[in-house]
Amino acid sequence: MAGSTTGHMFRVTTWGESHGPAVGCVIDGCPPGLRLDASVVQRELDRRKPGQAKTSTTRREADICEILSGVFEGKTTGTPISILVWNKDARSGAYEDIKDLFRPGHGDLSYQARYGIRDWRGGGRASARETIGRVAAGAVAGQLLFEKGIAVRVFTLALGGVKAEKLDMEAVHGNPYGCPDSEAALAMDARVEEVKKAGDSIGGLVELWIDGLPAGLGDPVFDKLDGDLASAMMGIGAVKSVEIGAGFAVADLKGSESNDAMAAQGFLSNNSGGILAGISSGARVVLRLAVKPIPSIGIPQQTVDIHGAPATIVTRGRHDVSAIPRILPVAEAMAKLVIADHMLRWRAIQ
Amino acid sequence: MAGSTTGHMFRVTTWGESHGPAVGCVIDGCPPGLRLDASVVQRELDRRKPGQAKTSTTRREADICEILSGVFEGKTTGTPISILVWNKDARSGAYEDIKDLFRPGHGDLSYQARYGIRDWRGGGRASARETIGRVAAGAVAGQLLFEKGIAVRVFTLALGGVKAEKLDMEAVHGNPYGCPDSEAALAMDARVEEVKKAGDSIGGLVELWIDGLPAGLGDPVFDKLDGDLASAMMGIGAVKSVEIGAGFAVADLKGSESNDAMAAQGFLSNNSGGILAGISSGARVVLRLAVKPIPSIGIPQQTVDIHGAPATIVTRGRHDVSAIPRILPVAEAMAKLVIADHMLRWRAIQ
Amino acid sequence: MAGSTTGHMFRVTTWGESHGPAVGCVIDGCPPGLRLDASVVQRELDRRKPGQAKTSTTRREADICEILSGVFEGKTTGTPISILVWNKDARSGAYEDIKDLFRPGHGDLSYQARYGIRDWRGGGRASARETIGRVAAGAVAGQLLFEKGIAVRVFTLALGGVKAEKLDMEAVHGNPYGCPDSEAALAMDARVEEVKKAGDSIGGLVELWIDGLPAGLGDPVFDKLDGDLASAMMGIGAVKSVEIGAGFAVADLKGSESNDAMAAQGFLSNNSGGILAGISSGARVVLRLAVKPIPSIGIPQQTVDIHGAPATIVTRGRHDVSAIPRILPVAEAMAKLVIADHMLRWRAIQ
Amino acid sequence: MAGSTTGHMFRVTTWGESHGPAVGCVIDGCPPGLRLDASVVQRELDRRKPGQAKTSTTRREADICEILSGVFEGKTTGTPISILVWNKDARSGAYEDIKDLFRPGHGDLSYQARYGIRDWRGGGRASARETIGRVAAGAVAGQLLFEKGIAVRVFTLALGGVKAEKLDMEAVHGNPYGCPDSEAALAMDARVEEVKKAGDSIGGLVELWIDGLPAGLGDPVFDKLDGDLASAMMGIGAVKSVEIGAGFAVADLKGSESNDAMAAQGFLSNNSGGILAGISSGARVVLRLAVKPIPSIGIPQQTVDIHGAPATIVTRGRHDVSAIPRILPVAEAMAKLVIADHMLRWRAIQ
Repeated sequence: MAGSTTGHMFRVTTWGESHGPAVGCVIDGCPPGLRLDASVVQRELDRRKPGQAKTSTTRREADICEILSGVFEGKTTGTPISILVWNKDARSGAYEDIKDLFRPGHGDLSYQARYGIRDWRGGGRASARETIGRVAAGAVAGQLLFEKGIAVRVFTLALGGVKAEKLDMEAVHGNPYGCPDSEAALAMDARVEEVKKAGDSIGGLVELWIDGLPAGLGDPVFDKLDGDLASAMMGIGAVKSVEIGAGFAVADLKGSESNDAMAAQGFLSNNSGGILAGISSGARVVLRLAVKPIPSIGIPQQTVDIHGAPATIVTRGRHDVSAIPRILPVAEAMAKLVIADHMLRWRAIQ
Repeated sequence: MAGSTTGHMFRVTTWGESHGPAVGCVIDGCPPGLRLDASVVQRELDRRKPGQAKTSTTRREADICEILSGVFEGKTTGTPISILVWNKDARSGAYEDIKDLFRPGHGDLSYQARYGIRDWRGGGRASARETIGRVAAGAVAGQLLFEKGIAVRVFTLALGGVKAEKLDMEAVHGNPYGCPDSEAALAMDARVEEVKKAGDSIGGLVELWIDGLPAGLGDPVFDKLDGDLASAMMGIGAVKSVEIGAGFAVADLKGSESNDAMAAQGFLSNNSGGILAGISSGARVVLRLAVKPIPSIGIPQQTVDIHGAPATIVTRGRHDVSAIPRILPVAEAMAKLVIADHMLRWRAIQ
Repeated sequence: MAGSTTGHMFRVTTWGESHGPAVGCVIDGCPPGLRLDASVVQRELDRRKPGQAKTSTTRREADICEILSGVFEGKTTGTPISILVWNKDARSGAYEDIKDLFRPGHGDLSYQARYGIRDWRGGGRASARETIGRVAAGAVAGQLLFEKGIAVRVFTLALGGVKAEKLDMEAVHGNPYGCPDSEAALAMDARVEEVKKAGDSIGGLVELWIDGLPAGLGDPVFDKLDGDLASAMMGIGAVKSVEIGAGFAVADLKGSESNDAMAAQGFLSNNSGGILAGISSGARVVLRLAVKPIPSIGIPQQTVDIHGAPATIVTRGRHDVSAIPRILPVAEAMAKLVIADHMLRWRAIQ
Repeated sequence: MAGSTTGHMFRVTTWGESHGPAVGCVIDGCPPGLRLDASVVQRELDRRKPGQAKTSTTRREADICEILSGVFEGKTTGTPISILVWNKDARSGAYEDIKDLFRPGHGDLSYQARYGIRDWRGGGRASARETIGRVAAGAVAGQLLFEKGIAVRVFTLALGGVKAEKLDMEAVHGNPYGCPDSEAALAMDARVEEVKKAGDSIGGLVELWIDGLPAGLGDPVFDKLDGDLASAMMGIGAVKSVEIGAGFAVADLKGSESNDAMAAQGFLSNNSGGILAGISSGARVVLRLAVKPIPSIGIPQQTVDIHGAPATIVTRGRHDVSAIPRILPVAEAMAKLVIADHMLRWRAIQ
């Protein structure tokens, strides 16, 4: 029943509910001597903060983090780093009248089945607010990786059926959707507007690139790099599919097509997505995630209450229209946690 | 560097190389009093044994298992169950002349990078023979689940571009490919014949159904049921994509389409694939895997040797043409291990 | 390098330094539905609070705890319980001038060797203030055990050479030393007075009794109940010896003396201390700990600085004269954590 | 219920029952490139083999080990090392007529309570034969430590009340009791003779020295070096007390006596036993264990059967008179496992 900790060497525990007093994380195993202050963490939290794109909830949280331990005179000491963010703009009233209904697509039913009790306010522990702890921890991991020349990039491949046709990394930060195709981003914007008006929500595709990884990362046979990345990504609320490299497409390839030939300069293709037999090959690691639409919508839906009686529900509250783009820093953080942990396990970071 | 153990309560460690003396597993945490004898394990090992479909290697192994501990008078005692299978038909000669070359699509390069040394005979630890330990352990887990009315089914959705058009569970065991569409199975057979002749290999799609799960299984937020299943599946050698429920397709759905409405009789659809917020919902758990073609092919490929010098390689040896169907019992075993572990963690099994 | 988490099912992570902003813990895996409010935790924290016996530091901390997550409407929800206590009366000035000296008997040298950096203020992470997180978590575990009829008692067998001659449990709470012999407690008081005047410190002996345990608790062969209790106790700052049952004395016994004969009414003696082959036998679990004197003393000591140069040090600051009695609630808390974890692992608690 | 694995980075799982087909272990996480062959392991197994001292059982086992994986061309490959020893001279007949009786001082009752079923032949999993796996794994760990200049020594301080008065390390291997005092060893021999005649058994004291450890080893606050060593030692069948450094004696010391002063050349005393705040200080690590008498004796004892009915039992079979000296290589092995694991966790071994 204790599932809130991830990592072996770089170990992260998150805690907190959407409408409780605060959310946060404890990072244990961060090497000593790493430069760290709250601004490093704050920068990443600001990326996932609500209210920056049209897709976002109108809940207003400054999400200011406090580092409560593990840092002394601007450097980590090797002891646990506790990071806390207070919840301020929680409005539980909107949830009061649906507290006995199971919202379709949400974890209400499954949490109730598991625990027999749940904090129904704002999704409780299943809320996206839980990811604050992940993003904060990912920011610390990111500092470690930065020093090793490892970079994680994440962008939106598709949103509500609108696909990026170009992969222009310069464009990614120039639009609110993290899309590497500026024109597609405009079309996404229009799509969001339209869906919002209809009270509906949309899904999309997200891609991650991890560059600078040494070959040799990953522990066969159950703690493989691809296995751990898949777990980290599938464990993000809205993700229903994880692909590595050519991913789904390998089903239709022949061996002579899918094998990545090698030459003196390196691999001649990257269908493997940078991972062979669960261990990094030195090529770019490529991941693709399918993100389901936000389940909270303004359209009436058929459901049951906690006693099994049929009911109709409209999930008001202040909700995102899509988990994209706010899921981007979360996916990036999870990738960083996995990589930092494996780097430490392999002693590629001292 | 210790990645050969999976599970927390139902903990499995596999060991062994393709051309070493033996392969096996140790299962720790199996509840006492479970009826178990070697025949239960043998039945599952026979399913993954080489030589049963045209896709298979011609290596001939009887793969007879011995249970060395943890069972007394036909019942488990709660102590570790050690299962061993001797390697008999290993022919290392075929590997001797390519031992310094990195086979494209294989783990040679990544293992070399990680360990600086590797048993090059038959793929060593990265060989499919390692899955014997998984399948043996899965057979034990399966006994536990059977007593709880939980059933795992696995079948081939597509092979080398040939797709099953029907999901006839009766048909699955009537053809060598585990295909739920008898006609498609014939076409698959023709496809295999053709690819084999060309010295090439093919990939495909596999689907798993888990029925009988209680709602409430899965530990938020990092040991979720979907995260653990994704890790288990992506950690199987040839798998490059894992989907749950509607999977990849959710990217194009709207919330009003992807949400599974509920009525007194249960869910009215199953886009969630039986998992909500990482916890089972009581609906069927549905997983889909994309399986890459076997990287060993008879066609010359461009590669490098361990010193980085360019070379051409033909990977002879005795190889499967596709990981399908032999991957089916492996995927099934991994699913059983994850479920058994979560059932014990949740105390749904005493 | 991540060693701040203990337990498998009832998993506790502590964080925080003596002179940082706060200290605390996260408890993951506490079953849902347990009655819990801050007062339950506060009661235990008050027992370890400084300033209640002559042995204690004059640091004045109210040590008021806040529960930040995992509790809803007075009951646990099964999600992580985050508990925080702010540090208020930290005075780092006293440490400023000895920050480059290794205090004898303290962890200064070993922490420096491990991390190359340390928060020298008040002992940093090696301070007794870290135990606040343990005691808070132990209070939650204690609630669980209380409902199962399991009671942990702890008392002072000896202090500064003064030994309890009686084991009168009524007397334990009637004196500031937790001594089961009221007369001995008076002699302990005189001893403390005398040692304090001399600027010195003293050690002692502590005993724990765990009653109400079912037979069958403990996981052979490496997670035995006695092994886990020994680890928990030896991991408390000042403890240098752990005995179970007859303990050290078994070395001089014969088998015919040390074996506990059994009759219909139970065991006829308890040399085993309630544990056989690492598993509880149903008899009272008995543990004995030797506690070393507080290393901070007012008497000049010979030492070296971080560069290895010889120096003389007087460790001023506000220190306890003995870890007893403040170590009593810490040892009790650690015992509760071990028992709660094993009860959950064995599914003796649902 | 899975307690047969120890270590995080150097992870060891033991399996096997006394009268099952075999016993063994799997070592996962051993670094690649370590010279290893069966003779290294055999040497240590020979030290714990029955029949070398008068204290020993007359069971005759050659205890020849086979290494089944993880070693290629005389070197470890980084993959799991599986080691197996067949049971040959098991005679279950002697146990047949006491299979329903709980032997005093043994784990019969506690195993029965835990599992509701047990392999009663020869103590099953609770037999000393389980330690074969530990000793084999310890031999591998020892190879690692040897390369780092770390040495573990173990000797008998007392046996059946006869105490070593000298600590002459040369003498240790010159007598069958591992006693550092040759004269005391003779007295021990006489004592054993006498006790054997009486059908009784005896306990004793064992001491371990670990030299060559770097300062800085150990993970605060729950995976401390002293906590992990205490767990490892207390988890050995017959051990009822573990002391570190001055151990039990600290209870009577003053701070000015127990603190180890430091000078340029190092510590001026070693009451801390080489561990400060749970982390190695660079001084010799000193451990002392109290070992209880073997519970199997030829003298009738009062007990109950599995239904609770009173009975008298004589535990025939072929038993040691004392766990000493055969416990020596086991304690040494456990120390090596803990140290190797911590060296890897701290990246002091690459």
